[in-house]
Amino acid sequence: MATQGKVITCKAAVAYEPNKPLVIEDVEVAPPQAGEVRVQILFTALCHTDAYTWSGKDPEGLFPCILGHEAAGIVESVGEGVTEVKPGDHVIPCYQAECKECKFCKSGKTNLCGKIRGATGVGVMMNDKKSRFSVRGTPIYHFMGTSTFSQYTVVHDVSVAKIDPKAPLEKVCLLGCGVPTGLGAVWNTAKVEAGSNVAIFGLGTVGLAVAEGAKSAGASRIIGIDIDNRKFERAKDFGVTEFVNPKDHDKPIQQVLVDMTDGGVDYSFECIGNVSIMRAALECCHKGWGTSVIVGVAASGQEISTRPFQLVTGRVWKGTAFGGFKSRSQVPQLVDKYMNKEIKIDEYITHNLTLEEINKAFDLLHGGDCLRCVLKV
Amino acid sequence: MATQGKVITCKAAVAYEPNKPLVIEDVEVAPPQAGEVRVQILFTALCHTDAYTWSGKDPEGLFPCILGHEAAGIVESVGEGVTEVKPGDHVIPCYQAECKECKFCKSGKTNLCGKIRGATGVGVMMNDKKSRFSVRGTPIYHFMGTSTFSQYTVVHDVSVAKIDPKAPLEKVCLLGCGVPTGLGAVWNTAKVEAGSNVAIFGLGTVGLAVAEGAKSAGASRIIGIDIDNRKFERAKDFGVTEFVNPKDHDKPIQQVLVDMTDGGVDYSFECIGNVSIMRAALECCHKGWGTSVIVGVAASGQEISTRPFQLVTGRVWKGTAFGGFKSRSQVPQLVDKYMNKEIKIDEYITHNLTLEEINKAFDLLHGGDCLRCVLKV
Ligand SMILES: NC(=O)c1ccc[n+]([C@@H]2O[C@H](COP(=O)([O-])OP(=O)(O)OC[C@H]3O[C@@H](n4cnc5c(N)ncnc54)[C@H](O)[C@@H]3O)[C@@H](O)[C@H]2O)c1
Ligand SMILES: NC(=O)c1ccc[n+]([C@@H]2O[C@H](COP(=O)([O-])OP(=O)(O)OC[C@H]3O[C@@H](n4cnc5c(N)ncnc54)[C@H](O)[C@@H]3O)[C@@H](O)[C@H]2O)c1
Ligand SMILES: [Zn+2]
Ligand SMILES: [Zn+2]
Ligand SMILES: [Zn+2]
Ligand SMILES: [Zn+2]
Repeated sequence: MATQGKVITCKAAVAYEPNKPLVIEDVEVAPPQAGEVRVQILFTALCHTDAYTWSGKDPEGLFPCILGHEAAGIVESVGEGVTEVKPGDHVIPCYQAECKECKFCKSGKTNLCGKIRGATGVGVMMNDKKSRFSVRGTPIYHFMGTSTFSQYTVVHDVSVAKIDPKAPLEKVCLLGCGVPTGLGAVWNTAKVEAGSNVAIFGLGTVGLAVAEGAKSAGASRIIGIDIDNRKFERAKDFGVTEFVNPKDHDKPIQQVLVDMTDGGVDYSFECIGNVSIMRAALECCHKGWGTSVIVGVAASGQEISTRPFQLVTGRVWKGTAFGGFKSRSQVPQLVDKYMNKEIKIDEYITHNLTLEEINKAFDLLHGGDCLRCVLKV
Repeated sequence: MATQGKVITCKAAVAYEPNKPLVIEDVEVAPPQAGEVRVQILFTALCHTDAYTWSGKDPEGLFPCILGHEAAGIVESVGEGVTEVKPGDHVIPCYQAECKECKFCKSGKTNLCGKIRGATGVGVMMNDKKSRFSVRGTPIYHFMGTSTFSQYTVVHDVSVAKIDPKAPLEKVCLLGCGVPTGLGAVWNTAKVEAGSNVAIFGLGTVGLAVAEGAKSAGASRIIGIDIDNRKFERAKDFGVTEFVNPKDHDKPIQQVLVDMTDGGVDYSFECIGNVSIMRAALECCHKGWGTSVIVGVAASGQEISTRPFQLVTGRVWKGTAFGGFKSRSQVPQLVDKYMNKEIKIDEYITHNLTLEEINKAFDLLHGGDCLRCVLKV
């Protein structure tokens, strides 16, 4: 390879300051060090975590940085000791690493991996605690260990899932975050059984993926709740059988759902990031067994609350990160499921733009029409 | 039977007003109606729910009433249609009914039964929505469907567990509430596995029964937390391996436990009824899988809270009522376990008094020495 071992200069969208438009810059991307992989990103989507950090509301957000964590690309080169991927492999960068050897990975109980968190949490790489990105000599922080708003990025080897090279990268990039999160919330975290009643709060990409997961699990009623009526028609295609707009009711939404379902739903999912809806999602669950899964990410510092009696009388409160999927092991399986037409992806992509148009893509994300906008990088 | 079909006049401890000493009265106990069972109570213990309602803090508490729900006795007579018990059977009254036919009982997912809640929640019997107790013509409310602070009580047939007649009633009365609650929180609700680390907040009867359950489940570390150092020595006999008094630490107790256990415990149990300790119990759990079970009953109106991130990163928040045991089916099995020396009971009984001394027994309950005080009725 002509580029191997050398600095690559390429285009990336740099977030210099919170809430200021991203700047398309020539960024220098250093070669991968031991245990690292340099990936050419071909397609990336935007997700709310990018927007949240960009907004400046995330107290752990670091600037300047290169955002982006829902993407697909091709390995350009690998650092010392990297054996599981090689140049030319098609990959999805994974913000949830999977080292297969830490306490978390070996527990058999969680998909959270502890190995590189110390570095990714502060925007650098493990090996030398430094960034691989710079602009005119100034280092630019990594983001979530992925930084996919760049033509080239460097990730840890424990953070790349090698996928079927026949899979269309402009579609499967979505398997980097939102779609697996929703499917896995149902399959891995809640373990919804056939015949269950399900309530889904928020019918964005994550909520629709929950609906798709619930439908495939055989749920009988899949009740979608959203304050935006435009979300309803589309949601039917993803399995939602009934719609409720809280604005149409005087009673608290939990009471509306309890009344609709003779005592409450078996499973509920909060896919918004609103702490008062998280409470409603718990409290609309059936006494004795109803389980509520928090999927949405609330703003920093916010708290959930309820009366403990809700739990003492048998409700269960859980949450999920990346839907409980082990990234390197299971993302390739999700790609295969897509190739076998067992899960949707195309239907979540409402817009296609280029990296240059990324600021427009952020605007779209805040409008109600957009599920996922895929950027050609 | 000489008494069958007739009103029985006997001694009972009547709570006329919140916080005023109970009065030992001659109470008239009407015969059981259809689906009801009149039980001669021989031994009853006191539990915190009795004290809570007696204190007047329970907004659903009704006065005058006959409290008591942890007891054992002998069936005196049965009403029409009662087939599962007969006069002379040894029984434990159960505040959690088990009808085996309602939505809850048939779900296979909970021990909460819905059949008679409409009546027991308002201190009366289902059949005619009236009380079977009166004093000089004034009706006295039932309590929790059990009212065991009386020489005779009337309960629903779905609320009596028939037990081995060889079992000593002065001991197995404890299987009416606290001990099963603790054991079941571990075995049924948390399902603690061998090798787990466990934290128990509050080392009263319930917390000690959690310790016993955790030990029998093979937990490796069983950390007991209490603000009363006198609780510690005794707790060792129940399986507690380490003690922490929050007063000995400047750091929040959840941080102390996280530090002691390299990231947090696998399971925690709140056995106090304090909402801020419920939060600590959740937050001392290990990221990725730690499960916290609320066993303590908080005062009405109080709320639990935490950051949703605690759940999104894999902790699970649950609660338990009567330890998840199905009362009529499983209390007899617990009696058998006691008879086979598989579970302790005697060790929880620190005091023995008579029904006449019940006010002294309430005082003992609030002192630190007492686990369970058993009254000869
Ligand atoms: N736990 C994880 O691993 C994980 C992964 C990805 C995304 N997320 C989070 O999931 C959430 C959803 O993501 P998304 O991409 O689907 O977002 P989205 O903005 O596309 O969807 C949110 C939906 O909620 C609706 N909504 C907003 N307020 C509402 C209210 N009060 N009541 C009812 N509906 C309301 C909106 O109309 C919208 O349809 C976000 O918080 C995101 O950060 C979590
Ligand atoms: N969920 C159920 O079905 C169920 C059944 C029975 C009892 N309970 C509840 O369980 C709880 C415990 O019952 P018990 O009989 O063991 O009570 P108890 O009073 O004997 O024990 C409570 C213990 O907690 C300790 N404690 C108090 N405040 C503390 C603090 N801030 N930090 C640490 N320790 C503290 C006390 O010193 C005491 O040892 C009560 O709330 C009771 O109502 C629930
Ligand atoms: Zn995301
Ligand atoms: Zn790992
Ligand atoms: Zn009790
Ligand atoms: Zn029932």
